[in-house]
Amino acid sequence: MTGSRVGDYRILQEAALRDYLAGLPEIAALLGGAPAGWAITEVGDGNLNLVFIVKGNRGGIAVKQALPYVRLVGESWPLPLSRAHYEYLALSRQAELAPGLVPALLHHNETLALTVMELLEPHVIMRKGLVAGTRYPRFVEDITTFMARTLFFTSDLALTAAEKKDAIAAFAGNHALCKITEDLIFTDPYRVAAQNRWTAPYLDGLAASLRDDMELHVAISRLKLKFMASPEGLLHGDLHTGSIMVTEGETRVIDPEFAFYGPMGFDVGAVLANLLMAYFASSGHERAPGERQAFESWVLQTVEKVWNGFARKFLGLWRTEARGDAYPVSLFAGDKGAARLEIERQAYLQRLFTDTVGFAAAKTIRRIFGLAHNIDFELIEDPKSRAISEARAVRLARGMMVEAVAFRTIADVTGAARKLRDWQPELSG
Amino acid sequence: MTGSRVGDYRILQEAALRDYLAGLPEIAALLGGAPAGWAITEVGDGNLNLVFIVKGNRGGIAVKQALPYVRLVGESWPLPLSRAHYEYLALSRQAELAPGLVPALLHHNETLALTVMELLEPHVIMRKGLVAGTRYPRFVEDITTFMARTLFFTSDLALTAAEKKDAIAAFAGNHALCKITEDLIFTDPYRVAAQNRWTAPYLDGLAASLRDDMELHVAISRLKLKFMASPEGLLHGDLHTGSIMVTEGETRVIDPEFAFYGPMGFDVGAVLANLLMAYFASSGHERAPGERQAFESWVLQTVEKVWNGFARKFLGLWRTEARGDAYPVSLFAGDKGAARLEIERQAYLQRLFTDTVGFAAAKTIRRIFGLAHNIDFELIEDPKSRAISEARAVRLARGMMVEAVAFRTIADVTGAARKLRDWQPELSG
Repeated sequence: MTGSRVGDYRILQEAALRDYLAGLPEIAALLGGAPAGWAITEVGDGNLNLVFIVKGNRGGIAVKQALPYVRLVGESWPLPLSRAHYEYLALSRQAELAPGLVPALLHHNETLALTVMELLEPHVIMRKGLVAGTRYPRFVEDITTFMARTLFFTSDLALTAAEKKDAIAAFAGNHALCKITEDLIFTDPYRVAAQNRWTAPYLDGLAASLRDDMELHVAISRLKLKFMASPEGLLHGDLHTGSIMVTEGETRVIDPEFAFYGPMGFDVGAVLANLLMAYFASSGHERAPGERQAFESWVLQTVEKVWNGFARKFLGLWRTEARGDAYPVSLFAGDKGAARLEIERQAYLQRLFTDTVGFAAAKTIRRIFGLAHNIDFELIEDPKSRAISEARAVRLARGMMVEAVAFRTIADVTGAARKLRDWQPELSG
Repeated sequence: MTGSRVGDYRILQEAALRDYLAGLPEIAALLGGAPAGWAITEVGDGNLNLVFIVKGNRGGIAVKQALPYVRLVGESWPLPLSRAHYEYLALSRQAELAPGLVPALLHHNETLALTVMELLEPHVIMRKGLVAGTRYPRFVEDITTFMARTLFFTSDLALTAAEKKDAIAAFAGNHALCKITEDLIFTDPYRVAAQNRWTAPYLDGLAASLRDDMELHVAISRLKLKFMASPEGLLHGDLHTGSIMVTEGETRVIDPEFAFYGPMGFDVGAVLANLLMAYFASSGHERAPGERQAFESWVLQTVEKVWNGFARKFLGLWRTEARGDAYPVSLFAGDKGAARLEIERQAYLQRLFTDTVGFAAAKTIRRIFGLAHNIDFELIEDPKSRAISEARAVRLARGMMVEAVAFRTIADVTGAARKLRDWQPELSG
């Protein structure tokens, strides 16, 4: 990887980007051929950045440049370029901890807020595959490894307190990105906010009931506080199925610009929530009743395997790789100590599961009533059918948030989801 | 206040200190008269630093200089001078938030790790007064104000998430001081450690039972993790009765060099633990049975009033000064919202009380089995009598740590303490 920090920030459109890349010998060699022959396409469909795919006659790369504002909204919503720095920091750390599960870093320019990465081909954004009803046999194994390793090895179980405090401080400046989450996930969907939207008029009554539901407001406020003040490990911070690229045999986690030290359940809950939304959206994508039954079964099995696999791997790392200052081995010597520590590990995971259930609920509700929606639901053309799918997801999410501790195992979650598969909600309008 | 950052670090003994102070016009004017006439006395009886009292013919000052090692142990235990910087940062913040309750800052030199403060006279270290059986009528009002204001205004209830993250990062480098706490309070007393000591042989059996008590080891490990990874507010970090100077009418909190963002219950628990130890030590200081009964009643009433006063003031600030990102007011609009938020405030304080009970227990056990003891117990000359007082305190502390949630109110704590006043423990040896 090469690096540089010269010049001032400027937005690189196609011609400028071509010149810039031509000046990077390693990148130019990787692409191959004359720069004039490189094919450059802007493909960013996210909410924040420019993303280019560049192909030469030998190979291809992906180039991501942060804009000084939120792309989805425009210059009226400024957003610091420093997020590219935090994304680079996080990606570097994830590459060490979960090799092969993030795109290879090829070049980073902090001033330009620009990162060059390997081109992921023929990978697709997992969410698009899920909408199409595609199953990904490799996904469980890879995402559980990614989460278990990135969360465990950045936690107090693996780091000394000094290393952990330094790492927290290194990411503390990424607060503008955290603020987006704090507002759009943990606050706005529960109050009148200009940027909220939902499938009207069908969900008008449900939207109003959420705004009036004080048990829910207490629950989301507790989760928000935990998000702000529980630096348990280095989070990806935006780990939905739009941040995961897949083939049948490979998985890559991309776009960690929301990275910071936060509560582990936020990442795990993000994955589960987005699978559960794929499940509830699925009936809306049927062309014939029952057509996607095998896919839906796979999704719920995947929900179970993601939690169970994550928990198993995290516990495994704790048993063999715990060199941090938390739960010092010297306090759990001998057979009796080992046995008691093992019970405590299970209790720790149970608390993490409760957090995960709550955060999964928060990630669901924001996609149905907040600013940023997802194509799982959005591509259901008939708004009434979409509203029905969404209302089922919200019913589950409301219970998961307010009664998180009542969900003792992941099977309690999938069981509740299955029961809601054909539930007919009362709609407004 | 004047400041400077010239020259390299050197230890200032009397002559060099006199020259240094003579070069600070404001300080020299405050002292009055010729520098040669200033009386300089080294009075540091703490574990870490040099402390000088300097008196001129007009006024006096206190000068604190950090040494590059732990004074109690010597050069074999190095400790970074940067702690003086963190102490200065914390003292400045506390002076803003709790005016009049910390010594006035007159000068700070970061390179010399040296701070000049107002001379507190005729204040005495509170612990010494408690050993003598003195009551302090002003203490409850002042310490509850200090804790409620310094903890509330540095929390997510008062700060934006960005302000809070910046503040956490500003103190993140103080990890060497946190490490002392992590080792000496949360780890060593529960295992064989060279620096441990206790009243032998009488407490040999109790020391062994703590090392073998896995329920206690789980409880202390959970508290340690909370200490490391719950930056709820800016802690003093060492808030025992040796860090509090008092007269009958005034209270000043000193020595915040352990300051960092941590769990609020650690500070509150420190105060309660040190009062409870004063209570259990009291019988050891009797010259005649029942002689200190009024003092002992005052101590237990003070324990109750400290918690209740702190909780009342903290809740009051939350009701009127909550401008932080946690529990946004907009989610609790109207009478129904206000009522539900008030219930949640009580629940928050209940969780904080549980933390406080656990941390108080940790602060007690370390003073009886760890490296740093306190004069409440140490000045009991008869070792058997001392061991009896200590064993009573440990019995309460063990229950408070393992069954923290069973203590629902502070009266549960004082009630348990009162029952142990005349309990006769089985001693070893």
